Amino acid sequence: MIASYRIRSDARGIEERARTIAVEQSVEMPLAAIREKAILTDIVGEVGAIEDRGDGWFDVEIALAATTVGADAGQLLNMAFGNTSLHEDVVLQDLRLPPELLTIFGGPRHGLAGLRRRAQAEGRALTCSALKPQGLSAEALGELSFALAMGGLDFIKDDHGLADQAYSPFAERVRACAGAVRKAAATTGRPTRYVPSLCGHFGQIAKQLEIAREEGVDTVMIAPAIAGVSTLQGLVAAHPDFAYLTHPTMSGAARVAPALFVRLFRLFGADGAIFPNYGGRFGYSSATCGEIADAMRAPWGDLKSGVPVPAGGMTVQRVPEMLRFYGRDAMLLIGGALLSAPREELAAQTAAFVRAVAEYDYEA
Amino acid sequence: MIASYRIRSDARGIEERARTIAVEQSVEMPLAAIREKAILTDIVGEVGAIEDRGDGWFDVEIALAATTVGADAGQLLNMAFGNTSLHEDVVLQDLRLPPELLTIFGGPRHGLAGLRRRAQAEGRALTCSALKPQGLSAEALGELSFALAMGGLDFIKDDHGLADQAYSPFAERVRACAGAVRKAAATTGRPTRYVPSLCGHFGQIAKQLEIAREEGVDTVMIAPAIAGVSTLQGLVAAHPDFAYLTHPTMSGAARVAPALFVRLFRLFGADGAIFPNYGGRFGYSSATCGEIADAMRAPWGDLKSGVPVPAGGMTVQRVPEMLRFYGRDAMLLIGGALLSAPREELAAQTAAFVRAVAEYDYEA
Repeated sequence: MIASYRIRSDARGIEERARTIAVEQSVEMPLAAIREKAILTDIVGEVGAIEDRGDGWFDVEIALAATTVGADAGQLLNMAFGNTSLHEDVVLQDLRLPPELLTIFGGPRHGLAGLRRRAQAEGRALTCSALKPQGLSAEALGELSFALAMGGLDFIKDDHGLADQAYSPFAERVRACAGAVRKAAATTGRPTRYVPSLCGHFGQIAKQLEIAREEGVDTVMIAPAIAGVSTLQGLVAAHPDFAYLTHPTMSGAARVAPALFVRLFRLFGADGAIFPNYGGRFGYSSATCGEIADAMRAPWGDLKSGVPVPAGGMTVQRVPEMLRFYGRDAMLLIGGALLSAPREELAAQTAAFVRAVAEYDYEA
Repeated sequence: MIASYRIRSDARGIEERARTIAVEQSVEMPLAAIREKAILTDIVGEVGAIEDRGDGWFDVEIALAATTVGADAGQLLNMAFGNTSLHEDVVLQDLRLPPELLTIFGGPRHGLAGLRRRAQAEGRALTCSALKPQGLSAEALGELSFALAMGGLDFIKDDHGLADQAYSPFAERVRACAGAVRKAAATTGRPTRYVPSLCGHFGQIAKQLEIAREEGVDTVMIAPAIAGVSTLQGLVAAHPDFAYLTHPTMSGAARVAPALFVRLFRLFGADGAIFPNYGGRFGYSSATCGEIADAMRAPWGDLKSGVPVPAGGMTVQRVPEMLRFYGRDAMLLIGGALLSAPREELAAQTAAFVRAVAEYDYEA
C-alpha cells in the first residue's frame, strides 16, 4: 500500500526524514540490525515520490507492505500512521490500498443503495435529524422522536453524546424512541428509522445491538475514532443485518486528512458517514467536503458506495444549496435548527425539511 | 469535571469561542431551544477561568457535567474533546475529574507495585526490551526472546507492529515467545515476562488473552488510541489478573496533551504506559516526559500508581542519565539498540543493560 504524508521540513532534510518515516512505519529498528534479506526487501517501507508543496511542506509517498496489516482495521491505522502520528509536523494525507485489502475489509454491506431501499427514497437525497439535548429522559427523547417522525424524516439519530447515562439508559432510550418512531410511521406511512448511537467496547455494543434488534432497529451509529476501527470492522462482520453510520467525533483535525478517515470508515464497512458540512459550526472547506463526499461515493474496487451525511449547524434554508453541492446521493442531517422550533411546530417544520428535499429539482 | 483547552484566538473573540465549546461539548444545540431548566443548569458546560498565554493562545477551563460520561471511557473522551477535536486550533490540555469518576474507572489493578512484585525488582527500576523487526516468523521471534531473556530482563514485549499477520500469527507467536522465555527463565532464575501485543476488538482480544493465559503470560500490551479506551476499560474489568502496558501509537501529537492521554490510560486501568523519551526518535521535551511520568505516578485519589516506560531510540549508555531523571519508579525500555548487537552477543549486551539498572546508585 502507498501512504502519502504531508511533512514540514527543509529541502535538504526531506529525503532523510522520509526514510526515517519509512523505517518507523515498518520495522521500527535500525536497518543495519536486520539480518533477514526478505525483511529488508519485502517489509521495510520504501520512499517513493517526494513533491515540494512550497512553504516548507512536502508530500512524500511511502510504500508499506500490506502483509504487515494482516486483516485488522486497527492494524491498518497502526502501520499507516501509528508512531508517526506522534510527530507534530506530519499529516497522513492519503492511502492507496491493494485489492487484497479491499477484499479483506469489504466495505459497506448495505451502502447508499441499501439505505435508500430502507427509506424507500429513490431519486432524491435522504433526510435525517438528531435527538438532543442530552440530559433529557428516555421518555422525553421518545416524545421528541415522535414529533420528528411525524414530519416524515427517513432517519432520526441519537446525538453522539447520548450513551448509557443514568438520565437516559441505552435500553430505555432505544425502547422509547424506537417505539415512538414506529407509532409515528404507522400514521405517516413513511418507513422512518430510529438510529441509536452505540458506545463502549465490542462486547457491550453486541448487547446494544440485541436490544436494538428486538425493537426492529436496523440502522445504528458508531464513532470509530472512539470505539476503535476494529470494533466497527468486527460489528459489520458479526452483525451484517445492521447498516452503520459513522460519527466523526475524536477523529481530530489536521493530523489525518478528514476524507481519508471517511474513506477508511467506508472500507471497514460504514454505510454512511456523518461529517461537518462547510459553512456550519466547523472549519471544513467546501473542497474538503467535496473530497469527503467522494470518499464515500466514488467507485472503489468492488466496494459499495456509502452515503455522505453533511451536518453540523445546517438549516432548512440551506437545503437547495446543499443539494446543488451534494446531489441526490447524500443524506442531509439537520439537528439543532429543527429542534429550535416550538414543540407544537416541530413536526410541521420537519415536514418542510422533508418536502424541500423531496421536491428539489435534482435534474436542474 | 473541568476540561482545560488551549485555544488560538484573538482576545476579543475568546469568550464567545469558549462559550461555543462549552455548548458543543455538552448539549450540542442552541441553548434557546432548550426548554428544560435542569438541563440548562446541570448539563450545559460552563466557562470558567480564561487565561491569556500570549502569542494568540488562551487557556480556557470549562466545567462539564460528569453525569454525561456515564461509566464509559470512550464517552469520557467524547464529552471532553469529541467534536472539538475537529477544530484545528484547540488542544485538550487537561481534565480534572471528580472522585466518582475515579471510583467508576478504578485505575491500575496492579500498578507499579504489582509489576515490581512480578519482576521481583524491589528498589530498582524495571527493564524491558522489544521483539523486532516484524516480518520475522514466530520461531525467529522465539529465538530472539530466548536470547533477550538470557540477559535477565524483567519484561520482553512485542513490537507494537506485531499483530496477527500471516508471517507470525498471534497464537503461534505467543506460544513460541512465552515458551522461549520460560525456558530461559528456568536457566537464569529471573522471572522474566513475555508481554504480547494485543490487537483487534474486545472479542478478539478476549480470545488472545485466553491463549496468553494458557502460556502463563500475565502481562500484556495494548494501544488504546487504536483499540479504543473502552476496550482497555472492559479488558481490565473482565480480566483483572493481567497487568496492562499501554502503547502510544495513534495517540497523535499536539491535539491532546501527551501527559493527559497517559493519565487517562492510567485511570482506565493501565499498569504501565510506554511513551517516547526525550532525546530519542520523537520530539517530546524532557518537561513533557516529566509530566508523563507524573501522570502515571503522582498520587491520585485511591488509584494505584502505574509505571512510566520511556522508550523510542534509547541506548544502554543513557541508562544512568535516564535513571537520574526518572528514578527507580520507572521501567526502561531499550529495543533497537540492543537488537543491533550481533546475535551471539545479544544476551551479554542485554545483561549489561540489566546490570546497569540493577547497580545504579538510586540514593545518589
